[in-house]
Amino acid sequence: MFKRMETFQQWLNQENIDAAIITSKENVFYFSGFYSDPHERLLAIAMFEGGEPFLICPQMETNAAKDTGWTYPIIGYKDTDDSLQILTDEIKKRIGNGKTIAVEKNHLNAFRYESLQRLFPNTQFKNAERQLNEQRLIKDEREIQKLEKAAELADYAIQVGINEVREGATELQIVAAIEYELKKKGVQQMSFSTIVLTGEKAASPHGTPGLTKVKKGDFVLFDLGVVYEGYCSDITRTVHYGGPSEKQAKVYETVLRAQQTALSIGRPGIPSKELDLAARTIIAEAGYGDYFTHRLGHGLGISVHEFPSITETNPLPLEKGMVFTIEPGIYIPNEIGVRIEDDVIITDKGAVSLTRFPKQLQVIS
Amino acid sequence: MFKRMETFQQWLNQENIDAAIITSKENVFYFSGFYSDPHERLLAIAMFEGGEPFLICPQMETNAAKDTGWTYPIIGYKDTDDSLQILTDEIKKRIGNGKTIAVEKNHLNAFRYESLQRLFPNTQFKNAERQLNEQRLIKDEREIQKLEKAAELADYAIQVGINEVREGATELQIVAAIEYELKKKGVQQMSFSTIVLTGEKAASPHGTPGLTKVKKGDFVLFDLGVVYEGYCSDITRTVHYGGPSEKQAKVYETVLRAQQTALSIGRPGIPSKELDLAARTIIAEAGYGDYFTHRLGHGLGISVHEFPSITETNPLPLEKGMVFTIEPGIYIPNEIGVRIEDDVIITDKGAVSLTRFPKQLQVIS
Repeated sequence: MFKRMETFQQWLNQENIDAAIITSKENVFYFSGFYSDPHERLLAIAMFEGGEPFLICPQMETNAAKDTGWTYPIIGYKDTDDSLQILTDEIKKRIGNGKTIAVEKNHLNAFRYESLQRLFPNTQFKNAERQLNEQRLIKDEREIQKLEKAAELADYAIQVGINEVREGATELQIVAAIEYELKKKGVQQMSFSTIVLTGEKAASPHGTPGLTKVKKGDFVLFDLGVVYEGYCSDITRTVHYGGPSEKQAKVYETVLRAQQTALSIGRPGIPSKELDLAARTIIAEAGYGDYFTHRLGHGLGISVHEFPSITETNPLPLEKGMVFTIEPGIYIPNEIGVRIEDDVIITDKGAVSLTRFPKQLQVIS
Repeated sequence: MFKRMETFQQWLNQENIDAAIITSKENVFYFSGFYSDPHERLLAIAMFEGGEPFLICPQMETNAAKDTGWTYPIIGYKDTDDSLQILTDEIKKRIGNGKTIAVEKNHLNAFRYESLQRLFPNTQFKNAERQLNEQRLIKDEREIQKLEKAAELADYAIQVGINEVREGATELQIVAAIEYELKKKGVQQMSFSTIVLTGEKAASPHGTPGLTKVKKGDFVLFDLGVVYEGYCSDITRTVHYGGPSEKQAKVYETVLRAQQTALSIGRPGIPSKELDLAARTIIAEAGYGDYFTHRLGHGLGISVHEFPSITETNPLPLEKGMVFTIEPGIYIPNEIGVRIEDDVIITDKGAVSLTRFPKQLQVIS
């Protein structure tokens, strides 16, 4: 864990930055192993170009932080304390007023940011985001093992869900069954609210499961993920109940071909956008170009959506150890929705799926 | 719904603010009825001192937004678009460069804030937070009905959980059973990850449920909530498995007395801090002052934690229609944890609990 802080310190050093304030729960976890959602309360790690870091958290969390193996100072504050003032005082003890401080500008809110600007009136604030993104981009062996395990549990969840598909089952009943079986297996957290959508509702890429019932002729779409030891999976499968119409079969086959094609061309050195464009072209040529309304995929790791974004314009070359989703979809409003999503890792031999649930159209009857 | 925008527009008018950009999913829901979690993508409502508002969201969400009854313009953007630039252009069409714009500084991140500062170089940005907090502070009849229903479902969830308490049951098994039963009842979302902690683990106020098993002599703590039509509940009950020791019984009785006392003095006009201090004093006098490590409670509504914070220093007078939690606890590290939490509403007759599950110590055997 502490190797990561060393790498980050080297960056501070190179960039002549005196200190950094890390405030997102994901990056606090990345550096410390301590995962906590403080809601509106302040949780932060302060790191310095030289010297020890410290962690600041609500007083009631200090024991939990210690238990994760963080061996540097921990500062607990009460709900009535001014936590940002305490953080500032501690930083000033170490670096005085500090000429340059890095913060997570994509996480820190404007109120806290302006407060810090007042508390450090002569300081320039830089964005640590890029360095943090780059450090987290390439996954190491231990991270890959966790991502594999998270993906395996996602595969299992899809099977549980498919087993529940029957005439009249509601979306929420299926969600309930999936999450129940996963929790029984020891899963502490889903990476986001499990999505099961049936029929027309599947045409809404981010719809909310409700009391809509499965009926003959429906596509049933599952989009779900699991957090395993801090790492996320994110899988989508779409199955058919009763047997597809010709149009439904064509939509499915198009999405599948787009997904497999994007997957097949992923390898080190290829620009990210090539994958998006390959999938997008197949969907457009089949006549559904207007109905693939989102990017091909997103990075995956401690966050379920993280750097990089796999879009048709992102030139970032793929590298060995990058993990991201490939998830084309076609959404014909109020009619048909199909998406197929895998989590993939870039290896020397190409892109390899961590999620392995079969992708050929499954017809439930 | 649109009355709320009118009230907000009046505030813009009074304060001579040209426009406001509302970016938190909670406040977008408050004004539009459209609930969507865009993750890192931009979701915003722009409102103006005069003229119609508009909503900007990812293109794939525009149909869902229309379906909620939002009748003003909706601007959808693609993942490859610069959404903040589009938002800016649309605002400039309406107010030119705008002298003053209100934003949610406690939500908007520093990166977007600095981008807006560049895009509107001569504009002063004010914080809309206080006005938004005040508008949401007093709940109307329809909101209260939803909060009551959410609380009723939370009471039910506690009963489901208690029914699962038995020798060897894991925390996660109990969580699974609770969420399964709620989803079967049509609950789409919990207001946060359901917490079930047993034995020493209950001494961690924000612990994570895992494979720890219930055993004789344990307190089992449930902290959970339900989202009902966009409104949250949040309840905690602690039960005993096997029968409490003298010390355990004393801790429970102290927390219960603190909770009931705070509840009994809530009424319009009383400063919030009086409730916190009343509970804190009882706990301190019993010798556990160091072990009540958080505030008494927090506002509750569209967000599970919202304005106001019920702390020992908050002078804010209670008002009819305010809804918040009362949740004292005692946490003796690695030994005992007890918390009792109700959702209460301030009425002319005093504070009334929305959560009604019994609070006398229940011993399961």
